[in-house]
Amino acid sequence: MRYLRYGEIGAEKPGVLDAEGRIRDLSGVIGDLVGPTLGALPAVDPENLPLVPGTPRIGVPVAGTGKIVCIGLNYSDHAAESGMAEPEEPIVFMKATSALSGPYDPVRLPRGAEKGDWEVELGVVIGKPAKYVSEAQALDHVAGYTIVNDVSERAFQTERGGQWTKGKSSDTFGPIGPWLVTPDEIADPQALDLGLDLNGVRAQTGSTSSMIFSVAQIISYLSQMMSLQPGDVIATGTPPGVGMGMRPQRFLKAGDVMELSIVGLGHQRQEVLQD
Amino acid sequence: MRYLRYGEIGAEKPGVLDAEGRIRDLSGVIGDLVGPTLGALPAVDPENLPLVPGTPRIGVPVAGTGKIVCIGLNYSDHAAESGMAEPEEPIVFMKATSALSGPYDPVRLPRGAEKGDWEVELGVVIGKPAKYVSEAQALDHVAGYTIVNDVSERAFQTERGGQWTKGKSSDTFGPIGPWLVTPDEIADPQALDLGLDLNGVRAQTGSTSSMIFSVAQIISYLSQMMSLQPGDVIATGTPPGVGMGMRPQRFLKAGDVMELSIVGLGHQRQEVLQD
Repeated sequence: MRYLRYGEIGAEKPGVLDAEGRIRDLSGVIGDLVGPTLGALPAVDPENLPLVPGTPRIGVPVAGTGKIVCIGLNYSDHAAESGMAEPEEPIVFMKATSALSGPYDPVRLPRGAEKGDWEVELGVVIGKPAKYVSEAQALDHVAGYTIVNDVSERAFQTERGGQWTKGKSSDTFGPIGPWLVTPDEIADPQALDLGLDLNGVRAQTGSTSSMIFSVAQIISYLSQMMSLQPGDVIATGTPPGVGMGMRPQRFLKAGDVMELSIVGLGHQRQEVLQD
Repeated sequence: MRYLRYGEIGAEKPGVLDAEGRIRDLSGVIGDLVGPTLGALPAVDPENLPLVPGTPRIGVPVAGTGKIVCIGLNYSDHAAESGMAEPEEPIVFMKATSALSGPYDPVRLPRGAEKGDWEVELGVVIGKPAKYVSEAQALDHVAGYTIVNDVSERAFQTERGGQWTKGKSSDTFGPIGPWLVTPDEIADPQALDLGLDLNGVRAQTGSTSSMIFSVAQIISYLSQMMSLQPGDVIATGTPPGVGMGMRPQRFLKAGDVMELSIVGLGHQRQEVLQD
């Protein structure tokens, strides 16, 4: 199933796609895609649900996200372009939940931002609490998969005194969606092609098969250090082709358009604005 | 006013202290200490509210915290004893919101933790959204002040591959409370004595007058990079005397008792357990 949330910011309703890709209204079945509901998503026949008219805005596909855990340098080829060694353990940082944004909402560079950058990533949404879980059990805790653009400001991230979170947490720096795709539709999360076009030109191309740490390894690893809760999002790292890695470097400016895709998980598109 | 939340985990109700320090039931006035309510806390006479019987557990003093932003190395005397240069800009990292814990709840060291450590800190709770705010306006966005124990696992933090968040985010690593003390009761947030005793022996002693970056500077600084939302918590850094800085180093073990206090903000006490 491909769940989603549609409607204006702060007033989203839960929905589900039907076989023709049309949005069906799920609000008569569940209150929202939030909390424990994510661990027991309803088995519905979308054809029996009301068709949503028009083309509403698509929002963040889950509500109540308690944390966004990001994995750094998790693609061997991206580590190489960044001039960094492959990590021996997952590099973990956090993006503020206030950065979450719909998949087609504009990305706003904050005042003073001169090194905005893009990162297409496989997003994992937790469905059931995870603590001290094994790799073998880890995927049982997944509600679904989605696309995350881990938008970054490289100067804030690395030139303003320690710790990356500064450059990852601006409002709109976390486009996510369009859908929450349940694991039964994803035969192998380590065999997904992903890509990002900037202004119609391919910038990032990769496959989750190049991840240094798999989704299952990441969930198990994190769960040794912190509990993962329903609605938590894990951004699993980005393949090569970010602006920071280009020669010469290329950073976002107002008017740029980012288009992201992961096979089976849909598409995102964001226009860049400058505050 | 000194607001608080009392009751079992997940079932806390809002309360307020009366002149004798007894808990009065605020649940007939507000639903919870959460969201926009924090920006417009009710002016009540506690004596007119029902007295809460017994000695209930004290919980996290606010609900719906979207992020915990922590400031590193923010006391000049702590920087000096660490032999480290004072940072030119605030060092920023995040603690998972799933780490939040009541002020008297036990602190549980996760499996494999051998370098648990303590950090008494002034906690700032945001009351009104803050984005691009000036230092002069920053304190208008504060709902109140509280105590935070920024419990840390130093090996997870610094020996497991980049970025501090790993060592800050275990469940129970964020004791906070007991009260949310409104700014009108705190004449100057930069003149608060704070301390931490380990097993009855003084470990940390300091004053917020030694902060390198003031509360107002921190709020203004952060708000240039990310929006601060009602319920967000800022942990403003710790004074000298953490276990990592002792010679020889001294880390937490099961049975240890931490007692924290900040003048005007009350007291915390946690027993240490090992998972």
